[in-house]
Amino acid sequence: MLPRLFIDRIRVKENVERVFHNPLFSNIEFRPHFKTHQSLETGRIFRQLGIDKITVSSLKMAEFFAADGWEDILIAIPMNPSDSIRYSKLAEKIDLHVLVDSTEAAEMALRNIHNSVTFHIKCDCGYGRAGISVEKKDRFSEIIALFAQYTNHDFGGLVSHFGDTYHADKEGIIEVNRKGTEDLRNLKTYLETMHALPCAISIGDTPSLNYYTEEILHEIDELRPGNFVYYDLMQYMAGHCKATDIAVALEAPILSLYPERNEVLVHAGAVHLSKEYCTMPDGQNGFGIAVQLNENGLGDVIENAFLYRLSQEHGILRVSPDFFKSFKPGDSIGILPVHSCLMVAAQTQII
Amino acid sequence: MLPRLFIDRIRVKENVERVFHNPLFSNIEFRPHFKTHQSLETGRIFRQLGIDKITVSSLKMAEFFAADGWEDILIAIPMNPSDSIRYSKLAEKIDLHVLVDSTEAAEMALRNIHNSVTFHIKCDCGYGRAGISVEKKDRFSEIIALFAQYTNHDFGGLVSHFGDTYHADKEGIIEVNRKGTEDLRNLKTYLETMHALPCAISIGDTPSLNYYTEEILHEIDELRPGNFVYYDLMQYMAGHCKATDIAVALEAPILSLYPERNEVLVHAGAVHLSKEYCTMPDGQNGFGIAVQLNENGLGDVIENAFLYRLSQEHGILRVSPDFFKSFKPGDSIGILPVHSCLMVAAQTQII
Repeated sequence: MLPRLFIDRIRVKENVERVFHNPLFSNIEFRPHFKTHQSLETGRIFRQLGIDKITVSSLKMAEFFAADGWEDILIAIPMNPSDSIRYSKLAEKIDLHVLVDSTEAAEMALRNIHNSVTFHIKCDCGYGRAGISVEKKDRFSEIIALFAQYTNHDFGGLVSHFGDTYHADKEGIIEVNRKGTEDLRNLKTYLETMHALPCAISIGDTPSLNYYTEEILHEIDELRPGNFVYYDLMQYMAGHCKATDIAVALEAPILSLYPERNEVLVHAGAVHLSKEYCTMPDGQNGFGIAVQLNENGLGDVIENAFLYRLSQEHGILRVSPDFFKSFKPGDSIGILPVHSCLMVAAQTQII
Repeated sequence: MLPRLFIDRIRVKENVERVFHNPLFSNIEFRPHFKTHQSLETGRIFRQLGIDKITVSSLKMAEFFAADGWEDILIAIPMNPSDSIRYSKLAEKIDLHVLVDSTEAAEMALRNIHNSVTFHIKCDCGYGRAGISVEKKDRFSEIIALFAQYTNHDFGGLVSHFGDTYHADKEGIIEVNRKGTEDLRNLKTYLETMHALPCAISIGDTPSLNYYTEEILHEIDELRPGNFVYYDLMQYMAGHCKATDIAVALEAPILSLYPERNEVLVHAGAVHLSKEYCTMPDGQNGFGIAVQLNENGLGDVIENAFLYRLSQEHGILRVSPDFFKSFKPGDSIGILPVHSCLMVAAQTQII
């Protein structure tokens, strides 16, 4: 067999239900980010739980899910105004939401996309990746003012991603959310007063899921977490999930065993897992942890079996001597990923 | 447009000819590694130069090139003995070469692969990734002894990869090759005497290409470099090629410009480039360098424009103020990759 994704559907359902059935979120709209799983089958688990609005990370991924009947999709990266025809075509059949963060791109898109699209402004609350800084109120106003000229399109509101939470502790996550939502709320009030247009607020990420409070949720309209469907070692090592919540692994063939150096060669390379690394439980950097694969799902984590070396197709597991009693060349083993989104992206290949 | 590979065919041809026309290599057989390009079109440039034997990094990639008429293929990763039927099927139509590094896997494969295959033993000369340590002569002997029982298969010889050269300086590269080929030569002499079988030696990597000597080449039969067809920033920063030898880039849409922070958002993420990083000319770690794309090929490197931040789909270029005079949202730009093999793998998706 070739390396392939192994998805634990029971854990997926538990992860998703744990969030959607949490009474804290009963007044919040969810628009989960589907870039983590990029899977029609996993998508349908969300649909069964009543989700009908989703987030994706590229136009191509939006087309992929639209083809499976998803009719309300936000593409959460500033849109490419030179692709207007392709956005327009997609907007013919679904409620398409796009992001802009410059007047120039907004103007090109408003002019060239002929079917109705909902525009949101990407707002930077300090992460410094994409978006207009929340402090530059005039630039938000300038974009919103354009909508008066293009009445076939809608204005949605402010979309922000508090990516700092991925490398923050509990207090940091709470503070990033407190400060970010306060800034968004002030901007919203300003813009609604100036333009007499409703301006929704959309945020959301997996690290924050355990730390949202009623006060924060009161300020916003929509949450867009994605990773929580599968979780991964990054989330586990940061304390945001249990190891037994991780719902996806790479099923990797064991190619060779080297007992003299307590190492095992697995067919699990950078092309399958990505080169994302994090600190393993032994304090070293690594690319994955070995896990048992059972017939119905993921089994126990194998003790002291870390993927510490990764080439294009080769992975080297450092294991304890017991490992050699249980496995031989040609067997398969699971590898829990450092970053499930990137591992899944490598396999599903919607790029 | 979506991010896509941009290949400079003129540079490809120059890179390949520079090696194959070098008189130093006139007595050496080349079996270039095709994992770098995974491209039928680039493969044909090799074919026009007389190459008829190739190396690949997976069974699937072997099937891919076999379908384009390549009839002599080495899969340069220890084979998975549980896939014997699939190897056997491929061996029906081509000269298939596989690697083993344990008696157990060799025995399973020899028994279960019914069409004739040439087996090579993967030999570890100190890199410590895959292979039997060159010092364990008895273990090589044990595998070769098996061939007496399975006369439908052939024994090829010793295959090694001196991966240490990727992180060594000139002296280190020369020493790794001197010591490695000496050890392989001794092992070959021992095995040929013991088993009265010819035992070829195959090595080869791109960093060593500039440093092979007649003495080293005299010891070996075959070279398997791969990366030199495209090169990349890793090879350039290590001094193994010129920046103008790099023959592949990601053609990436510019999504947004942030002059206030001298940054630019490009649609070029980890899913397109991989998360491989190296030191940029400014001393910081980065994921790529911006380059002009001309109609006929790659143009000038853009000064001080480094991709220093990478998410799943977002890339952040740090640029100098001049950048903003030349580009607007919706334009495209080239990104020279840190590791061309992984960028290409992300796009071609033969996994």
